[in-house]
Amino acid sequence: MSDLLFAAEPRQRDIARELYTFAAGLPLISPHGHVDPGLLADDEPFPDPARLLIVPDHYITRMLLSQGIPVARLGVPSRTGAPVETDPRAIWRLLADNWHLFRGTPSRLWLERTFASVFGVTTRFGPATGDAIYDEIAARLAEPGFRPRALFEKFGIEVLATTESPLDELSRHAKLEADGWGGPGGRVITTFRPDDVVDMEFEGWAGRIARLGELTGEDTTTYRGYLAALWSRRQAFKAAGATSSDHGHPTARTVQLPAAEAARLYERGLRGSASAADAEEFRAHMLVEFARMSIEDGLVMQLHPGAVRNHNKSLYTVHGRDVGGDIPQATDFVHALTPLLDAYGNDPRLRVVLFTLDEDTFTRELAPLAGGYAALYLGAPWWFLDSPDGLRRFRDAVTETAGFYNTAGFTDDTRAFCSIPVRHEVARRADAAYLARLVAEERLPLDEAAETIADLAYHLPKKVFRL
Amino acid sequence: MSDLLFAAEPRQRDIARELYTFAAGLPLISPHGHVDPGLLADDEPFPDPARLLIVPDHYITRMLLSQGIPVARLGVPSRTGAPVETDPRAIWRLLADNWHLFRGTPSRLWLERTFASVFGVTTRFGPATGDAIYDEIAARLAEPGFRPRALFEKFGIEVLATTESPLDELSRHAKLEADGWGGPGGRVITTFRPDDVVDMEFEGWAGRIARLGELTGEDTTTYRGYLAALWSRRQAFKAAGATSSDHGHPTARTVQLPAAEAARLYERGLRGSASAADAEEFRAHMLVEFARMSIEDGLVMQLHPGAVRNHNKSLYTVHGRDVGGDIPQATDFVHALTPLLDAYGNDPRLRVVLFTLDEDTFTRELAPLAGGYAALYLGAPWWFLDSPDGLRRFRDAVTETAGFYNTAGFTDDTRAFCSIPVRHEVARRADAAYLARLVAEERLPLDEAAETIADLAYHLPKKVFRL
Amino acid sequence: MSDLLFAAEPRQRDIARELYTFAAGLPLISPHGHVDPGLLADDEPFPDPARLLIVPDHYITRMLLSQGIPVARLGVPSRTGAPVETDPRAIWRLLADNWHLFRGTPSRLWLERTFASVFGVTTRFGPATGDAIYDEIAARLAEPGFRPRALFEKFGIEVLATTESPLDELSRHAKLEADGWGGPGGRVITTFRPDDVVDMEFEGWAGRIARLGELTGEDTTTYRGYLAALWSRRQAFKAAGATSSDHGHPTARTVQLPAAEAARLYERGLRGSASAADAEEFRAHMLVEFARMSIEDGLVMQLHPGAVRNHNKSLYTVHGRDVGGDIPQATDFVHALTPLLDAYGNDPRLRVVLFTLDEDTFTRELAPLAGGYAALYLGAPWWFLDSPDGLRRFRDAVTETAGFYNTAGFTDDTRAFCSIPVRHEVARRADAAYLARLVAEERLPLDEAAETIADLAYHLPKKVFRL
Repeated sequence: MSDLLFAAEPRQRDIARELYTFAAGLPLISPHGHVDPGLLADDEPFPDPARLLIVPDHYITRMLLSQGIPVARLGVPSRTGAPVETDPRAIWRLLADNWHLFRGTPSRLWLERTFASVFGVTTRFGPATGDAIYDEIAARLAEPGFRPRALFEKFGIEVLATTESPLDELSRHAKLEADGWGGPGGRVITTFRPDDVVDMEFEGWAGRIARLGELTGEDTTTYRGYLAALWSRRQAFKAAGATSSDHGHPTARTVQLPAAEAARLYERGLRGSASAADAEEFRAHMLVEFARMSIEDGLVMQLHPGAVRNHNKSLYTVHGRDVGGDIPQATDFVHALTPLLDAYGNDPRLRVVLFTLDEDTFTRELAPLAGGYAALYLGAPWWFLDSPDGLRRFRDAVTETAGFYNTAGFTDDTRAFCSIPVRHEVARRADAAYLARLVAEERLPLDEAAETIADLAYHLPKKVFRL
Repeated sequence: MSDLLFAAEPRQRDIARELYTFAAGLPLISPHGHVDPGLLADDEPFPDPARLLIVPDHYITRMLLSQGIPVARLGVPSRTGAPVETDPRAIWRLLADNWHLFRGTPSRLWLERTFASVFGVTTRFGPATGDAIYDEIAARLAEPGFRPRALFEKFGIEVLATTESPLDELSRHAKLEADGWGGPGGRVITTFRPDDVVDMEFEGWAGRIARLGELTGEDTTTYRGYLAALWSRRQAFKAAGATSSDHGHPTARTVQLPAAEAARLYERGLRGSASAADAEEFRAHMLVEFARMSIEDGLVMQLHPGAVRNHNKSLYTVHGRDVGGDIPQATDFVHALTPLLDAYGNDPRLRVVLFTLDEDTFTRELAPLAGGYAALYLGAPWWFLDSPDGLRRFRDAVTETAGFYNTAGFTDDTRAFCSIPVRHEVARRADAAYLARLVAEERLPLDEAAETIADLAYHLPKKVFRL
Repeated sequence: MSDLLFAAEPRQRDIARELYTFAAGLPLISPHGHVDPGLLADDEPFPDPARLLIVPDHYITRMLLSQGIPVARLGVPSRTGAPVETDPRAIWRLLADNWHLFRGTPSRLWLERTFASVFGVTTRFGPATGDAIYDEIAARLAEPGFRPRALFEKFGIEVLATTESPLDELSRHAKLEADGWGGPGGRVITTFRPDDVVDMEFEGWAGRIARLGELTGEDTTTYRGYLAALWSRRQAFKAAGATSSDHGHPTARTVQLPAAEAARLYERGLRGSASAADAEEFRAHMLVEFARMSIEDGLVMQLHPGAVRNHNKSLYTVHGRDVGGDIPQATDFVHALTPLLDAYGNDPRLRVVLFTLDEDTFTRELAPLAGGYAALYLGAPWWFLDSPDGLRRFRDAVTETAGFYNTAGFTDDTRAFCSIPVRHEVARRADAAYLARLVAEERLPLDEAAETIADLAYHLPKKVFRL
């Protein structure tokens, strides 16, 4: 067995190895991700290695951009009509030629492990071997065993949640349910992600509000109708298997406004006259509204604050959202969450899973909060932090104050379907390494560490996300 | 000997073991804590295991609260008349049944080591063994050797400082002095903690100011009389053995106001018309006033900023202060302390020991400040950070910039009398582990590391706190 | 070979040793520092051990100050006429007597390694041996092999950049060029550091602007003339070998003002009526102007924000700037750099090397930015962070997001000529230790780690700084 990510010291490494066996074989629980549900609904073969593994992976495209390689040369679609590379082999070679840039990064680890464990390719990737590896993977992708549903089963995924806007009609989830793959308790479920109908600063917000009205039959020209429409969509999402909602706000700010004041903000937004401060206030207010709804309908709230979206302006202008141009910012939780916590923080019916891009908040704010309020759980390290050292620093930072059982266990956050197994492997190995240190330092008995690693890998995410 | 907290690598572990022997047997210096002086003045037997070890320990009650167990079920007194659990065995069982929540936390370590080293209980604690352990400890508590003074001697405590308000008449310290346990140079001394007569935002401030006047015979309706009253109480505290004051402000802000302006703020406070900003300004001003008094009377200043007090509102409403509802916040020192440092920062007669809940400030602000001003020392990691990994990160963060000799050595901060030995053991072990790494990496010779660990454990706190 | 800074675990240590051999013998690239160019231009013998190694080293003088020893007793020049110690042996003894204060600090490491590797002194430094070591070093300094140029060659320095104001006439660099030591591509080159003609808050700014006009023949009473004068000096610096500029602002703020508005600020500055906010706005604007010039003339921009200069007021009053009285502050990059990045962030002709004193920004802001913009590189840990553990934390914090190739490799930042070799040794060892962990944890193959360490030590700084 590989000793990947285990400390070198032989005794501690032996403990890590042993602990890892208690997690390695458990099914994968993936309650938060960005896989396209159409992939599994349609179950078509994947197009080619580059479009599968490079083009949609903004960890990869941004690193190449940082060394002066425009993402257009990597096939990232443009929305301005600017030309982009379309030859998958050319894209693939560009990565192979620059593979040294990824030394020490999780992208390298994820891709190399994916090559090996999913495609059986064990040659070392690089300029000299890129083409041959391309051919091997392309050949695999043509085989029936490499279609999405076959891989899903091979990967040992027990449940996978995708993420949809309230405006999504959930037709792909309906197809999955019809095939015995979806619906409540199913293998592929959805997540209620209302940002694009909550955040007035998203382009085209008013138009989407109108569409929300059509979809639900509610009068979304009024705030009251808007709330009813959101409630209606939540219930439709629950019917399609959703057990959680997800909220990606710039900050963690919450506020509880009187209904009349919220209505005024809402109407200002519809008239197109809301300021940036109005939009922030409305987002903050809606988080408390969603917490209230959560207590009623049981959807677990996920909160992902702290990204400055589309920081790289020219990248955004040409290629749009979610292509690697977001940058973290310092994030406050201790003051921002107070209104929500004053209202519902000690209510065990509410579950709010907090994620952060600002690891400074782990010891200072998040662990104390999760270790002091019944409603709060800490999400796994997210995005830039979902890496071997990021995972280690997370446990190191939060465990002493929040323990293990105020965390939600591991959740990957990936768009890259084939990387799901390695993401979980890395997290399980990182937890094995962390727990092995506690055991070696006489801070935790081995049998309790073994129980804990299984909880972190499987039982906790299942329980916290009500799966 | 146990290898608790020592790194697994055999050579480095051997060094840690050897270094630890230079600290393990030294007496305990406890210049800052929250033990009730009545405990040692009266020397009555402890009531029962739950009231001794669980009810007052907010590290424990907050963790259970975070998993939905109300603190009332743990016997935490209510101030609203709401019913609370009174059966110590029921409280104990609730903890035993949920003991897995504490895996990886210092609470687990502290409690298990206390069981073993104080009460001789070595059975592993948990649902199956909780009752038997309760009985064993209850039996011990009935023995004369387990009364407070006997334990004090058994623990090897050389000096213990408690913390009192200026309004405290110090009668328990008078009793201790009469018994040969207290007074200047005694085993149990007090600390001057004026927050409740400095902070206008504490409930009932004006009433306490009146009481301060009665107690001192000064006219506290004037600012001048207020300063005289504080000075008078400082001298009374010194006479009862105090060598330090302690200041628990929300921020580290300091400011030097003209006396007339300070007087105006003071009077506004007495009239009940001070704003939050006025209260902050007055606290900031009083820190500089206390520094001035410190230079005159030699009391060492401890500054503990950065907690948002009573963050959990409903917990506060029902159970009051200091029951685990405080959360850290980002804290600035570099700008906040400037006025105080401009006035007295290079004066070696002044000693200000700085504590923080925001470990981000360790390398960025606190180590550079303590390594650049004669008056500043760094206090030990406090509260959420007084844990094995918190202690390690502290040394890692500050030593390269501030060295060891701008830190005040280890001070526990405990309310839990029986946990004092294990707190010091953990700190001594953590320092042994840190120093062993320096030795193993050829950064410090063994003999100097041995001298250093004894300084950190014993000689430095004694010197810095003028004991 | 010494195992300094390598982890104790034997297998990992063996890997570190092996990796270190790939860097240990490479020439030293020192593209940023504060060595006086006159030292190498004149090539006079060094005066005495104290004036060489103690007086100008503010790491040492500030640590002694923090323990109540005024820097005047260490010979630091006063600008008020206050008396300072002039006997080098007395200064030396004061350090020897207090050497324990430096346990665990890089100052200890640097000085002891300098004693050993430069002067051949292997006796342990301390009160008992200080005098003898003084004598040994003093004897060495009288030998011709210990003159600056001889040491330069002995140290294996390939290129050393000093730092000059635009007002410097570069006569010492002219002398160096005449001697075959300087000029473009030479061994000793300059760096364009315009802070004192950009920052209106520096004492005597308007006078220096006038001098800038005289020096260049441009009319610096106008903003347009000011820009022309700066451009002219940049070209003069390039002619003297400069390949970079350096900018030491309080914050990282950038802004792109219309020329008319910039001109208004400039004129307000000249009239002496600029506010602190005006000065900050002008500094921010000039950073974008310098980026524009950089794209034209190819000078690499170094940005060193985040120090509160002259925090210790009485130290500044008596002894002036750059004597150890600066303290870091929390620093924002993600918002501050946006205007500059919007303008030029994806332009690979621009190179901005970012340094920080606030290590919290490493994972949260700097690594994501450097990993997402073609123009950005991360500078080595600077100042308080250029220490063994600071270097380790830097790699740990940034590598997973930015990789190795968005960093600029190691650059020392020293005023202390004799410490240059040990600074590079420490960095190379710290990188060997970090890379050995990646290899031991199966995250990087040994051969790639070996290539990487040579890149970090030599090839990357050479390439990034266009040497």
